[in-house]
Amino acid sequence: MWTCITDFFTYETTKSVVVKSWTIGIINRVVQLLIITYFIGWVFVHEKAYQIRDTAIESSVMTKVKGFGLYNNRVMDVAEYVTPSQGASVFCIITKFITTENQVQGYCPESEMKFKCTHDNNCTRFLNKPGGNGLPTGRCVHFNDTLNTCEIRGWCPAEIDYIKTHPMMEVENFTIFIKNSIRFPLFNFTKGNFLPTITPQYIKACNFDHENNTYCPIFRVGDVIRYAHQNFTTLAQKGGVIGIKIGWMCDLDKSEDECNPSYSFTRLDAMSEKNSVSPGYNFRYAKYYKMDNGTDYRTLLKAYAIRFDVLVNGNAGKFNMIPTLINMVAAFTSVGVGTVLCDIILLNFLKGAEQYKAKKFEEVSDTQIENSLSSNGLYRSREFIGVEKQSNDSGAFSIGQYG
Amino acid sequence: MWTCITDFFTYETTKSVVVKSWTIGIINRVVQLLIITYFIGWVFVHEKAYQIRDTAIESSVMTKVKGFGLYNNRVMDVAEYVTPSQGASVFCIITKFITTENQVQGYCPESEMKFKCTHDNNCTRFLNKPGGNGLPTGRCVHFNDTLNTCEIRGWCPAEIDYIKTHPMMEVENFTIFIKNSIRFPLFNFTKGNFLPTITPQYIKACNFDHENNTYCPIFRVGDVIRYAHQNFTTLAQKGGVIGIKIGWMCDLDKSEDECNPSYSFTRLDAMSEKNSVSPGYNFRYAKYYKMDNGTDYRTLLKAYAIRFDVLVNGNAGKFNMIPTLINMVAAFTSVGVGTVLCDIILLNFLKGAEQYKAKKFEEVSDTQIENSLSSNGLYRSREFIGVEKQSNDSGAFSIGQYG
Amino acid sequence: MWTCITDFFTYETTKSVVVKSWTIGIINRVVQLLIITYFIGWVFVHEKAYQIRDTAIESSVMTKVKGFGLYNNRVMDVAEYVTPSQGASVFCIITKFITTENQVQGYCPESEMKFKCTHDNNCTRFLNKPGGNGLPTGRCVHFNDTLNTCEIRGWCPAEIDYIKTHPMMEVENFTIFIKNSIRFPLFNFTKGNFLPTITPQYIKACNFDHENNTYCPIFRVGDVIRYAHQNFTTLAQKGGVIGIKIGWMCDLDKSEDECNPSYSFTRLDAMSEKNSVSPGYNFRYAKYYKMDNGTDYRTLLKAYAIRFDVLVNGNAGKFNMIPTLINMVAAFTSVGVGTVLCDIILLNFLKGAEQYKAKKFEEVSDTQIENSLSSNGLYRSREFIGVEKQSNDSGAFSIGQYG
Repeated sequence: MWTCITDFFTYETTKSVVVKSWTIGIINRVVQLLIITYFIGWVFVHEKAYQIRDTAIESSVMTKVKGFGLYNNRVMDVAEYVTPSQGASVFCIITKFITTENQVQGYCPESEMKFKCTHDNNCTRFLNKPGGNGLPTGRCVHFNDTLNTCEIRGWCPAEIDYIKTHPMMEVENFTIFIKNSIRFPLFNFTKGNFLPTITPQYIKACNFDHENNTYCPIFRVGDVIRYAHQNFTTLAQKGGVIGIKIGWMCDLDKSEDECNPSYSFTRLDAMSEKNSVSPGYNFRYAKYYKMDNGTDYRTLLKAYAIRFDVLVNGNAGKFNMIPTLINMVAAFTSVGVGTVLCDIILLNFLKGAEQYKAKKFEEVSDTQIENSLSSNGLYRSREFIGVEKQSNDSGAFSIGQYG
Repeated sequence: MWTCITDFFTYETTKSVVVKSWTIGIINRVVQLLIITYFIGWVFVHEKAYQIRDTAIESSVMTKVKGFGLYNNRVMDVAEYVTPSQGASVFCIITKFITTENQVQGYCPESEMKFKCTHDNNCTRFLNKPGGNGLPTGRCVHFNDTLNTCEIRGWCPAEIDYIKTHPMMEVENFTIFIKNSIRFPLFNFTKGNFLPTITPQYIKACNFDHENNTYCPIFRVGDVIRYAHQNFTTLAQKGGVIGIKIGWMCDLDKSEDECNPSYSFTRLDAMSEKNSVSPGYNFRYAKYYKMDNGTDYRTLLKAYAIRFDVLVNGNAGKFNMIPTLINMVAAFTSVGVGTVLCDIILLNFLKGAEQYKAKKFEEVSDTQIENSLSSNGLYRSREFIGVEKQSNDSGAFSIGQYG
Repeated sequence: MWTCITDFFTYETTKSVVVKSWTIGIINRVVQLLIITYFIGWVFVHEKAYQIRDTAIESSVMTKVKGFGLYNNRVMDVAEYVTPSQGASVFCIITKFITTENQVQGYCPESEMKFKCTHDNNCTRFLNKPGGNGLPTGRCVHFNDTLNTCEIRGWCPAEIDYIKTHPMMEVENFTIFIKNSIRFPLFNFTKGNFLPTITPQYIKACNFDHENNTYCPIFRVGDVIRYAHQNFTTLAQKGGVIGIKIGWMCDLDKSEDECNPSYSFTRLDAMSEKNSVSPGYNFRYAKYYKMDNGTDYRTLLKAYAIRFDVLVNGNAGKFNMIPTLINMVAAFTSVGVGTVLCDIILLNFLKGAEQYKAKKFEEVSDTQIENSLSSNGLYRSREFIGVEKQSNDSGAFSIGQYG
């Protein structure tokens, strides 16, 4: 029993060969230096491996658009050109309307040239695949003095969506006010994009730009579009989707004041620029009214809009013992990897490689063991330890064993 | 000083015992082969560990529904059955309406049987927990010729939501057009689900299916529901939520043309199928009108709808030096793990295990050290190195030291 | 060739020194024990490193608010105070309205004191920066008997948003019903927040609380606000954003019944509490009407609301061979790290450190090698192995090599 315990409380360490050679010594220390530099410089300083990180940011976005536009001789305000109205992180500013007033359920001619007809027979082919503005009836009816088109059943009159209209150019000067609160649940750290340094006076006057007002939460639509490398007129004409990205990269080991938002802007439907199929962004909705006799009628609106998506992402780090320990262990372990390289050089390319090999490797073969066992039931270890032979292990194969 | 420098520029390598035994040699190489195969086959080829990955995809989704339905002898178009109208990634197609027209603020009887009453006393129990269609007044009033119910204050008349109506079956043939632009910010790689090979002619005619039109961005509602293993009639009757998932798994080391979307479909509110409590999906909204005298009245709509959630996820990889290096180091290190297994076999189960042990382990005990120190102040290392004894370390305990 | 094969099928193992010393033996085993305890206790049991994890939860949320409020002598129902009406994961309950009825396009005086004027000249400064309720015309007009203000063009009359109104206090007793289905795609595991143990009777009567009804999917607004540590009256007065978080932390190695949702509540726009600039949450929208002659008029509503964001996150784990293997290898490897510490103690701080050093390190210098090479072209390894010298490697430098 006692032997067991004494045998247990022993310490095993590898036997090492110390090579006093300038060549390999310098290579060895340089490789170790590189590995240590990598770990300190990249892993610890740059990647901050001593921190635990929280990327599961909790975020709340409120938006408010301000500005007045003049469109079709009417003054448009927020309640008309912003939809949905709730001021959430996704909202559309409508830049152009195609309005079809006083639609009622009934029968009327199609409005597009591709439904042109001279006889009912021209219209039967549409019966099975409705496409235009309603259910085709298969009849050819009078559209205007010069044109007959196929008849439809649905909301009448049919929308004429090929009329050219100009977008509301005042949109360029509208302002978007963004209120963003974030929380890193792991650290219970809460902050908002209204920095404590911002005064009510500053808010009233400021507009975001990348130089002097990097923390102003009010954005001119024209600026946002310009920062996203887009042209306002084209965008207002065809519609599109702009991403306003708010990034919170925070080192919570530093002062709370250094955890600030950074804004960037990009066109999200970038594909629309490249592809001619269905460019831009538009949608249809209707306002419903009732006549005195109870009949429904409506105004159909096809709206071309710029959609803004406010996207928030965050990444906060704070010192923590566990990742620090794990990465220090990884660093120590990795320093040993240099040995692989040095062994290859030492045992293959250095002058006297065979001598080094002889020094590093002791050989024992099973024939020796068998001889030793057969010659003497009671083995005599001292003897065969003396019978040493230089190993021919090539060093190239040895790579694995030293990792 | 010079000694210090020469001592510093040395190289230490472990002293090794090379065992020339077929048994252990083959085991050793086979274990190494397995580890290398695992790393090359799984880690590098399958898991592409030589790449850095970006999963923080930026995505923009636009949707447009097309089709006409006939409901209650009215033709329904997109502006009526799609809500919200903005064409975002989440939208509902309404399949069934329960309409309550001409509601005004006032007093009226409840519409449900559970509010049946014969006397005011039957109604007092509802006073503290309003449930039906308005605030209970506690009175019992005439509902129709055969029934008295409790009176409420609110929008009157009360909705009768137990009337059976048929869903709009044309929805099955409606088409959903999805425009999806994505960007992997890490690689500044932008692509859309309109592949460059898609022509305007193809778009006009195509419908997505899993065989021939895997990249057509137009989806028939009936197909989507079928691919999600649902029954259209049941879904249209009760409502539900369908997920349209777009996956972008891209290997950016390959050609850009091979980075394509893959579509999959699933029912998101799967629970609704299993559980009888509150199955399906419906919501209420109202259209507001004004009489000439300024009184508000409204049409209340209870809409049963199929909600579609377009969910985009992406994962792109590209060759990068840092993960390649890290994983190669991990691979080299792991090859050494095989030694643990081989040592256990060599030192315990092989014929001549004791001899191998003697060869591998040199023993030194503190009594020896103390003797050596006391006998001669100036230690003579050559002597006690000669005094070797076979170690009895059992090999089983040794596991740890070689890892 | 045969030599090549025999040379290949060999096994290399490190030569070790077994130190039979109580001091270092106990330190060694204690360090190993600590490392093993850490791995078993923390990595395997606590962090469940033997599982693969899925955090890419697929979730579908449906909400339904119930309750009736009395506001301005009108009964408000869901169709009026909840927006958007679709019952998605984000919805607002409006608590307060500022209503401006019968607006038409035209000219009228501003309503705010800051547009006070006595002469047209006072109004010209507003021409270039519209702020109030419409486009300024630059004229000073009669607002009421005591006040003249600058004229605007737009929807008239202008909104008076500084009138004090009381919020709808009944909101506190409204209930929010949340239906949440989740799916872990990696394990194809589907579940909902309607646990199988929940009966229709229970659902009808229950209200969520943190003690007895932790799985009831019906939440009283007042309770939610209380759990988020907010005051209902303040919140209803100014508006705000409340997050309802549903967490699904599931160990799928256990029974399916143990995978249950946990609800938590937080105020998302926490910044609003701290900062006086633009506190709360409100938005404007309008209801449009038509006169008999076709003129549009509208009711503008400024709504103060409590927005609820239902946020779902999940994390499920299940036993898998690959992470189990990887972590076991990591555990074995890490046990070896203890050696670094023990070596430092053994070679520097222990009595007889120099002897241990002599035992552990064999030295070979390039001068020896060169001598050996020059004296005899055919090297005689046995000879110079005899010429050993005690190494002076300091042990502190040795750290790297044993990792």
